[in-house]
Amino acid sequence: MAVGDVSMPQMHVVQGVKLSAVEAYIRYPNRRDLVLLQFAADTQVAGVFTQNAFCAAPVTVSKMHLEQSNPRYLLINTGNANAGTGPQGLSNAQQSCLKLSELAAVEMAQVLPFSTGVIGEQLPIQRLIDGLPQALAALRDDAWVDAAAGIMTTDTTPKGASEQFECDGIVYSMTGISKGAGMIRPNMATMLAFVATDFPISAEILQQLLTRTVNRSFNRITIDGDTSTNDSCILAATGQAGGACLENLDDPRYGVVAEVLERVMTRLAQLIVRDGEGATKFITVTVEGGAHTQECCDVAYSIAHSPLVKTALFASDPNWGRILCAIGYAGVVDLDVNKVQVWLDDVQICKDGGAAEDYTEAAGVAVMQRPEMTIRVDLGRGVAKDTVYTCDLSYDYVKINADYRS
Amino acid sequence: MAVGDVSMPQMHVVQGVKLSAVEAYIRYPNRRDLVLLQFAADTQVAGVFTQNAFCAAPVTVSKMHLEQSNPRYLLINTGNANAGTGPQGLSNAQQSCLKLSELAAVEMAQVLPFSTGVIGEQLPIQRLIDGLPQALAALRDDAWVDAAAGIMTTDTTPKGASEQFECDGIVYSMTGISKGAGMIRPNMATMLAFVATDFPISAEILQQLLTRTVNRSFNRITIDGDTSTNDSCILAATGQAGGACLENLDDPRYGVVAEVLERVMTRLAQLIVRDGEGATKFITVTVEGGAHTQECCDVAYSIAHSPLVKTALFASDPNWGRILCAIGYAGVVDLDVNKVQVWLDDVQICKDGGAAEDYTEAAGVAVMQRPEMTIRVDLGRGVAKDTVYTCDLSYDYVKINADYRS
Repeated sequence: MAVGDVSMPQMHVVQGVKLSAVEAYIRYPNRRDLVLLQFAADTQVAGVFTQNAFCAAPVTVSKMHLEQSNPRYLLINTGNANAGTGPQGLSNAQQSCLKLSELAAVEMAQVLPFSTGVIGEQLPIQRLIDGLPQALAALRDDAWVDAAAGIMTTDTTPKGASEQFECDGIVYSMTGISKGAGMIRPNMATMLAFVATDFPISAEILQQLLTRTVNRSFNRITIDGDTSTNDSCILAATGQAGGACLENLDDPRYGVVAEVLERVMTRLAQLIVRDGEGATKFITVTVEGGAHTQECCDVAYSIAHSPLVKTALFASDPNWGRILCAIGYAGVVDLDVNKVQVWLDDVQICKDGGAAEDYTEAAGVAVMQRPEMTIRVDLGRGVAKDTVYTCDLSYDYVKINADYRS
Repeated sequence: MAVGDVSMPQMHVVQGVKLSAVEAYIRYPNRRDLVLLQFAADTQVAGVFTQNAFCAAPVTVSKMHLEQSNPRYLLINTGNANAGTGPQGLSNAQQSCLKLSELAAVEMAQVLPFSTGVIGEQLPIQRLIDGLPQALAALRDDAWVDAAAGIMTTDTTPKGASEQFECDGIVYSMTGISKGAGMIRPNMATMLAFVATDFPISAEILQQLLTRTVNRSFNRITIDGDTSTNDSCILAATGQAGGACLENLDDPRYGVVAEVLERVMTRLAQLIVRDGEGATKFITVTVEGGAHTQECCDVAYSIAHSPLVKTALFASDPNWGRILCAIGYAGVVDLDVNKVQVWLDDVQICKDGGAAEDYTEAAGVAVMQRPEMTIRVDLGRGVAKDTVYTCDLSYDYVKINADYRS
């Protein structure tokens, strides 16, 4: 059960984007596991990918193809990550692109492949290829919800975010989907996220927007600290809604688009945490008063990764000593612990490095029982700030990951 | 239930060391929670302590006292960590030393305090002080087992190691105890470990021996990646068994002592992992073929910390993709994944970065079902090697840590 409101919003059609989700029996029967996104000609596409050295074959191929061409198709399968699969895995990823490019009459490099699922097994490439004609035939502009469902693995809910916004009298759409519930500590992007707008944006600005926004959204979440082999995030701008192309940062429309993108991507990233494997709580960790943003980020992740903090959150136990402990080993140089303050929502639990005098266990428990709460830390060293989103560690996390392959 | 043989060996008396364990009701009634170690005059004492910025009050005081004097007493309480307790906590730690020094007619700085237990609550100092006369009266040279039991918190078994060895016709003893089962990712030393020998060793050599050996034992284990606020490891040499003082590294006896110490400390460190909270498996992670030791250590810890690897170990699931994934995000610069080999005990699961051709799931499962196994990685970059010890992540880890304070 995901935490809080994870309902699918109205998914606005993005002009120039069509989608489909079909059954190809990649791993399990009777589920849509092959998803296709088609972009109109001249769509600009930007991507960020996992930093894991064992990056999956489709990541390698997608990065290569993205350098060579303007992609027209995203080909996504679930059930199999095609990672740790050596030369055969690379060949399979390339073959899937080749077959689709032949059927769709585009260049092979105009297809970007994505896979998610079990690591270390070869992709059932023939079944995937057999599903392609059906996927092409099923393309529709209103299939965002189907696509969101089709990329799920251990996710319990499809994840989508969508907004409309107006610039110079034109109404644009920004719509995206994401998936991921475990092996989540993105380092460049989350497992899989695809966002598209019909706003016209140049390639350069698009990549800048994507990198900037991923660092404020997908790169600020953690479930279990495991950086996946397959993390990929794609942002596409079809330009099909019209208007002048956004080509420089001084364009007054830049701020509007950036703001909408940040809301959409933050929502998609938070949805992944809300659906974290076994999660019963959605936790915002905000660290302020740092000398620089990196140390705030380090402290926030130290808290968000601590199994002891996460089990205390699961138990609704305001065991703030574990939070102090995690702050203490975050590696902040010359941290003066006597200047550290910690709050659970509005309740100050730690003042000047020790217990806050007016803190009561009852007040702490009352906050910890909330399904959504904020751990706020002030380091007392400066004005930098950063925020990370995470969830608790429950019996079900262990159950899900001990049972995943069976 | 601890994994494998964790039985207490014959704990050889160390001449010049007396111990006691009494009930002081630090947190729970009817348990020995106050432990005292007394060293003969002129005993040399060396220590290493946690690197956590929020180090506990007793750690601060012990470090200070160790610089000022030759300690005669170690005063240890369980049930309360005296960490995150501010000025009051420091005062309490100092007061406990002062009271003991008055009763024992030594200097205050000759007492080193140690605490372990819940973080963030003030020490019940009066109850602790009230227990001191009884602790002094109960000192005996054969109470190592009682002391091992008296320092336990969530440990399910007392932990001890002991050897006798001969140099120049004299028989010496080396005996130690340790505790710790959660919040274990030592960075200098484990939660608490106390080792003593009646071999005569100079202060300088003693500190060198301790630092060297801790880096090969306590600094190579992890249960949950949480570096505690209270980690402390003490090594004492009473010299009471006679013989010339070991004063330089060229002394042929140095190698003998170093070897015994490494065996004793490695056993004490491994006992902590075997008794890891909720542990059902004892795992050795060996990484070889590295360009330098640090990257081997990084990769070993990356595997040993991964919740996905640890839950797969719990499930006896040879999900080697998770191991590759953890290797991939360990931050090894320019890792060529095509040179990586991985074995589970004697079964090669990954060859040249992909699945080993002759690997079968059945062979993998057979190894994974063993209560003790080795994950061996060859990075194919050089000749450096390092080893880390860890355990799996089970339902019971979550249960223990969600329930700990209730």
